[in-house]
Amino acid sequence: MDFSIPDKIKSIIETIDTFVREEIQPLEEDFLTSPIEQTLPKLEEKRKKVKDLGLWSPHLPEEYEGMGLSLNEFAHVSETLGRSPLGHYAFNCQAPDVGNMEILLEHGTEEQKETYLRPLARGEIRSCFAMTEPEFAGSNPTHMASSAVKDGEDYVINGHKWFTSAADGSAFAITMAITNPDAEKIHHRASQIIVPTDTPGYELVRNIPVMGHTGEGYFSHGETRFTDCRVPQSNLLGEEGRGFAIAQERLGPGRIHHCMRWIGICERALELMCKYAVSRELSPGKPLASRQIIQAWIAESRAEINAARLLVLQAAWKIDKEGQYASRNEISIIKFFVAGVLQKVVDRAIQVHGGLGVTDYTPLAYWFRHERAARIYDGPDEVHKAVIARRILKEYGVQTSI
Amino acid sequence: MDFSIPDKIKSIIETIDTFVREEIQPLEEDFLTSPIEQTLPKLEEKRKKVKDLGLWSPHLPEEYEGMGLSLNEFAHVSETLGRSPLGHYAFNCQAPDVGNMEILLEHGTEEQKETYLRPLARGEIRSCFAMTEPEFAGSNPTHMASSAVKDGEDYVINGHKWFTSAADGSAFAITMAITNPDAEKIHHRASQIIVPTDTPGYELVRNIPVMGHTGEGYFSHGETRFTDCRVPQSNLLGEEGRGFAIAQERLGPGRIHHCMRWIGICERALELMCKYAVSRELSPGKPLASRQIIQAWIAESRAEINAARLLVLQAAWKIDKEGQYASRNEISIIKFFVAGVLQKVVDRAIQVHGGLGVTDYTPLAYWFRHERAARIYDGPDEVHKAVIARRILKEYGVQTSI
Amino acid sequence: MDFSIPDKIKSIIETIDTFVREEIQPLEEDFLTSPIEQTLPKLEEKRKKVKDLGLWSPHLPEEYEGMGLSLNEFAHVSETLGRSPLGHYAFNCQAPDVGNMEILLEHGTEEQKETYLRPLARGEIRSCFAMTEPEFAGSNPTHMASSAVKDGEDYVINGHKWFTSAADGSAFAITMAITNPDAEKIHHRASQIIVPTDTPGYELVRNIPVMGHTGEGYFSHGETRFTDCRVPQSNLLGEEGRGFAIAQERLGPGRIHHCMRWIGICERALELMCKYAVSRELSPGKPLASRQIIQAWIAESRAEINAARLLVLQAAWKIDKEGQYASRNEISIIKFFVAGVLQKVVDRAIQVHGGLGVTDYTPLAYWFRHERAARIYDGPDEVHKAVIARRILKEYGVQTSI
Amino acid sequence: MDFSIPDKIKSIIETIDTFVREEIQPLEEDFLTSPIEQTLPKLEEKRKKVKDLGLWSPHLPEEYEGMGLSLNEFAHVSETLGRSPLGHYAFNCQAPDVGNMEILLEHGTEEQKETYLRPLARGEIRSCFAMTEPEFAGSNPTHMASSAVKDGEDYVINGHKWFTSAADGSAFAITMAITNPDAEKIHHRASQIIVPTDTPGYELVRNIPVMGHTGEGYFSHGETRFTDCRVPQSNLLGEEGRGFAIAQERLGPGRIHHCMRWIGICERALELMCKYAVSRELSPGKPLASRQIIQAWIAESRAEINAARLLVLQAAWKIDKEGQYASRNEISIIKFFVAGVLQKVVDRAIQVHGGLGVTDYTPLAYWFRHERAARIYDGPDEVHKAVIARRILKEYGVQTSI
Repeated sequence: MDFSIPDKIKSIIETIDTFVREEIQPLEEDFLTSPIEQTLPKLEEKRKKVKDLGLWSPHLPEEYEGMGLSLNEFAHVSETLGRSPLGHYAFNCQAPDVGNMEILLEHGTEEQKETYLRPLARGEIRSCFAMTEPEFAGSNPTHMASSAVKDGEDYVINGHKWFTSAADGSAFAITMAITNPDAEKIHHRASQIIVPTDTPGYELVRNIPVMGHTGEGYFSHGETRFTDCRVPQSNLLGEEGRGFAIAQERLGPGRIHHCMRWIGICERALELMCKYAVSRELSPGKPLASRQIIQAWIAESRAEINAARLLVLQAAWKIDKEGQYASRNEISIIKFFVAGVLQKVVDRAIQVHGGLGVTDYTPLAYWFRHERAARIYDGPDEVHKAVIARRILKEYGVQTSI
Repeated sequence: MDFSIPDKIKSIIETIDTFVREEIQPLEEDFLTSPIEQTLPKLEEKRKKVKDLGLWSPHLPEEYEGMGLSLNEFAHVSETLGRSPLGHYAFNCQAPDVGNMEILLEHGTEEQKETYLRPLARGEIRSCFAMTEPEFAGSNPTHMASSAVKDGEDYVINGHKWFTSAADGSAFAITMAITNPDAEKIHHRASQIIVPTDTPGYELVRNIPVMGHTGEGYFSHGETRFTDCRVPQSNLLGEEGRGFAIAQERLGPGRIHHCMRWIGICERALELMCKYAVSRELSPGKPLASRQIIQAWIAESRAEINAARLLVLQAAWKIDKEGQYASRNEISIIKFFVAGVLQKVVDRAIQVHGGLGVTDYTPLAYWFRHERAARIYDGPDEVHKAVIARRILKEYGVQTSI
Repeated sequence: MDFSIPDKIKSIIETIDTFVREEIQPLEEDFLTSPIEQTLPKLEEKRKKVKDLGLWSPHLPEEYEGMGLSLNEFAHVSETLGRSPLGHYAFNCQAPDVGNMEILLEHGTEEQKETYLRPLARGEIRSCFAMTEPEFAGSNPTHMASSAVKDGEDYVINGHKWFTSAADGSAFAITMAITNPDAEKIHHRASQIIVPTDTPGYELVRNIPVMGHTGEGYFSHGETRFTDCRVPQSNLLGEEGRGFAIAQERLGPGRIHHCMRWIGICERALELMCKYAVSRELSPGKPLASRQIIQAWIAESRAEINAARLLVLQAAWKIDKEGQYASRNEISIIKFFVAGVLQKVVDRAIQVHGGLGVTDYTPLAYWFRHERAARIYDGPDEVHKAVIARRILKEYGVQTSI
Repeated sequence: MDFSIPDKIKSIIETIDTFVREEIQPLEEDFLTSPIEQTLPKLEEKRKKVKDLGLWSPHLPEEYEGMGLSLNEFAHVSETLGRSPLGHYAFNCQAPDVGNMEILLEHGTEEQKETYLRPLARGEIRSCFAMTEPEFAGSNPTHMASSAVKDGEDYVINGHKWFTSAADGSAFAITMAITNPDAEKIHHRASQIIVPTDTPGYELVRNIPVMGHTGEGYFSHGETRFTDCRVPQSNLLGEEGRGFAIAQERLGPGRIHHCMRWIGICERALELMCKYAVSRELSPGKPLASRQIIQAWIAESRAEINAARLLVLQAAWKIDKEGQYASRNEISIIKFFVAGVLQKVVDRAIQVHGGLGVTDYTPLAYWFRHERAARIYDGPDEVHKAVIARRILKEYGVQTSI
């Protein structure tokens, strides 16, 4: 076993870490306390700087002007970017675009790549991924009513989606819809289809109010409706009926990105906790850091973050080595384990900050609100646990339903 | 021992419960997803209805057109109102006004009562309580820099405060300031002084951005500054140097109100959890409620809420019977115990709701955000625990500092 | 509501508390570190003293030379006795005899009372209750294979039981067996039958090794076997087919006893924790009690014990007032809530004691071992939670299976 | 990063795993339910087999007839042996002998090696390590009263020790005593001295009753007393005044052994949990494994064990690479993290087993009792957390005392 990080990656991380601290973090106060319009122009400037520094699109191959990092390498970068709520966006590797780029890269036709991937890779447009439907439990993604019916050269799509993150302002939506309702296996029924948002019949109904904000632009979650929405069949991604398979493939790397981003949040929260603990005085000369419970929280956070990171890196290593199928348990485990650590660490950091912790003068309250969903999206913790247990128990000779 | 609730109170609770469900809860969606101006006029109508029904100001004596309930009786009412974020306001018993009314009632001169209490009691004005200072740890309220110096007939106040809840739009601020800096005992140094907000030198610097919102009007937390702010000495509440003593007296009943409000939130969250669990289907005919973990959360929530309520009612009974001093541990215990239950129950309710839980289509996300402070304000949990332990350990012969 | 304890009970508790501290606790060291034979004679002397003081059999009516306390009154006594692992035995109200006495009192014929209850009440014999079977999950008591078949004037019993507590040395076993296998309702099939342990066909197979000890005499858990074991039909308790109903009736009061005993353990553990914390020095003049985490554990234990006690007393009050059926949820809730508090408090007390905590120089390690079963017997926590939730969810219109 | 295990180690682990399952686990029932004398002769036979298979003393160099494994390699072996309470003893790498062998190997003179290490390595004798004193908090090992005073060629030792594990039957005790009371630095005062147990003045006062057992032979914890106990100065280990330094050096590898043993226990507990869950039926055809809470426990255990193992292996890797000093935080972190996982996993496994879980028919109850000390010995969790936090906070510019 070898736990060392290659020097090349260390150096990249260091550069990015410095950039995030010096260029991105200073934008946070505005971002957290003012309408987003105030921050966006400054953020665009930073994106230009990132490009100039050659740090743009770390996850993309050089052919698409990215850094060409492997999954493992990008994992470390994702942690570093996670330090700020603006980090991934500044480097053009924000969800859901990062996943959409991966899908297009892997399954897109040349034409699709030119039309959709290139401008995404350049950061000229944004996109969204329309899967979850309000009428069905998100824990079972095969449970879906949206349909895409062939008609001439086109698909005619009807459906209702929500939690379509960043739909507001997106140029296109990769849309999951049932194309093969009669396929024997339920997970062979859906396909992924590119729907430009200016297609008649596509509608962003509203931005869903989430944790007190309807949000806007990139920072929003849309409710979308497709009414006889007609797109050419050439907009199909991959083969028909392979929608879930493609989503599944995207899941492992996506999980690694997310989890490393959460670990970045944890590291920042721990840093804020320590800084505040040493600077806040309970009485002259006696900092908050002298309290044993604060110390215990710092040590527990350190231990849990270290554990979480090792689990994620090991999962990334295994995906790389044995593929996603063999790594299903690892991918499920990091989902609930890291989300749990995230919630604990952010909660402790807020408590250490006292009243300041619930204000928007630190990013802690933002993460407290918006990362609560970490235990919910992509399947709630409880579903992941049941799925893992079912696989383990199979080795003991029993099939259990979840 | 007798755990029964008198029929009179049962009947009042029932009436109020029906009112909250039928008249107040329907306002929540607007309140949670629109600017507050949209909800305020409707809320004013409800306040009129409450008056007409004779349910106004349940905590005030009939002399002030209140219901004249005892602490214990009001505790039950406070739980019922807690079901909605708008409940207490609709019944004119919202913090901090409810506490300010109690202080004025107990310590105000006749003139102060006429000028400040009467309009508060009628709901014509609002008020705030300016104590916490950003430069000092909130866990030690005697730690304070604001001063009120006598000059002629006046006090001249200088100071800096924050988390002055509902300062925006308040007619006056009950302000804690050091009047007797040389008093031997540190808690004999401060006084409470009424400062009308139109006094020159009083400034609402800003509404503090809390959990993503700067808020406005009643629903805000102000940063306030007093610069050579001059008020007549007749604005002193009670005796000089008794500021902490008066605050202390207000603490016990205030804690009971708060904790019962939290229990009301818990009951609503549990109700929402159950309703959603029975209505959401995992697959046809199989509701979410069939899952064992959901069942465990419901049972645990039921147990914890029952336990929390008994602790609070017992504390209220003891305050009533043996006074606040004898009940200090009980008053501290409910602070952290009930706040802990609150956070757990709301968190579970969100998790049961999945994606819906983080939206503003239920009040859960609102409570998740705004009641995070429950473990912080009025002294963080950790301070309360140390204080309780210190008292217990004294019985074993040891003085320990916290 | 009235949380006060009547003076009469206060005075009884005080007397018993003093007796336990001065007469019973000094026997603990021997009990914990030597074979039980060494302690038994001394314990017999104490039992005589208890009789002389008029404190014998607090749960029995005066007709049976008991103290004639109500369920509520006995609850307080049970807590006080729970301070020592020897408390209940010294006062002749130890499980399972206490439950058996209650059954005989309520359902026994005059002859049964003379033969079995009188000597039990006098403490001349001991008894056991044979219900759980190793082949069936204890969480479903109606799941049972033992049978009692009528033959002439007799029942012929065949069956296999375990966790028959205190079987070793018992004069008789109240035995659950299926007498009416064809009854439509599963819980109308079994009966309770008195089986003297010298009946041919009755066999104590072994004492089960539990937590490192096979135990002996009263302090043991037996595996028992009934092979064509023949007893007269007059040994039937109550009506045929009413076995579960009688067990059920015994459940509520039994739960109150147990839970109050657990609370007594918690109080003793907290007392030991505090005593050790003030006496152990980390460095000269700096006791362990000065550490914030120790303080937090003391405060949390105090809060949780108070909450647990109120829940149990409220359940006892409700049983008394509205009967057991109406109080089913309360009876289930205290099972898992108090067991959880018990485990946490004992665990903390051990941790405070460091190495000493795992030795047998305090009763903490004994409770740690033997009260682990608290979360298991009479139905594991998880089953109780599901049962409670099912009842709550029924109010929301859904029947869920557990 | 590379998380793969070398084939050589995989193959050794497989062999040992098979041996433990087929040869050692079958001895457990006797070990758990009978006096130790019954198991010892069988265990000796197994030890012979282990030697014959070339698996003896995996931690020792080949020069001492060991397997010559590195710390990392032995870590994996230690996990495999941890599956059974008898595993390490059967392979001659049981604590405290394993640590004593390491000390002798590193610091012993040739003569000491011949006299003490050789017979230990061959398994002909046993030894103990006398450090902890009942009068001082174990959390601060430099706090010690035992002294060794030079007199002629000898040291004259006086002192009182407890928790001297396996003292009963040991041939010698490595004893910590103050030799340089005037050394400026407190951790330069003590030395390690070999004391043969037949030395006059050495006394095994008693075996301490721990968790219900006084234990005997290897399976015991002694209280020892040194009264004018005279040994030649040639029995000094390493240099005078270096006692703590040597203990410290032994700490890192010792921690790795222990933690991997705990992980072995966890793996066995999880295996037992799964096996029981699939075999126990709640009703015909519906195994316990179908319950969602059981499934959650299995998944959580899997996640936590994986995380714990990665932390330990990374610590071992870092010790190997950067030395113990640089790895202090990692060594402290695994102490409390793995001990916490251990307690949770064993507790869940017991709960899954219901009544069977508290019996001695599985090793779970043994571990529940005897591994409770994991959170206490070598410094309680709370001390480790404070120490870690202190180091972290130093980077933020503050020195905090623990």
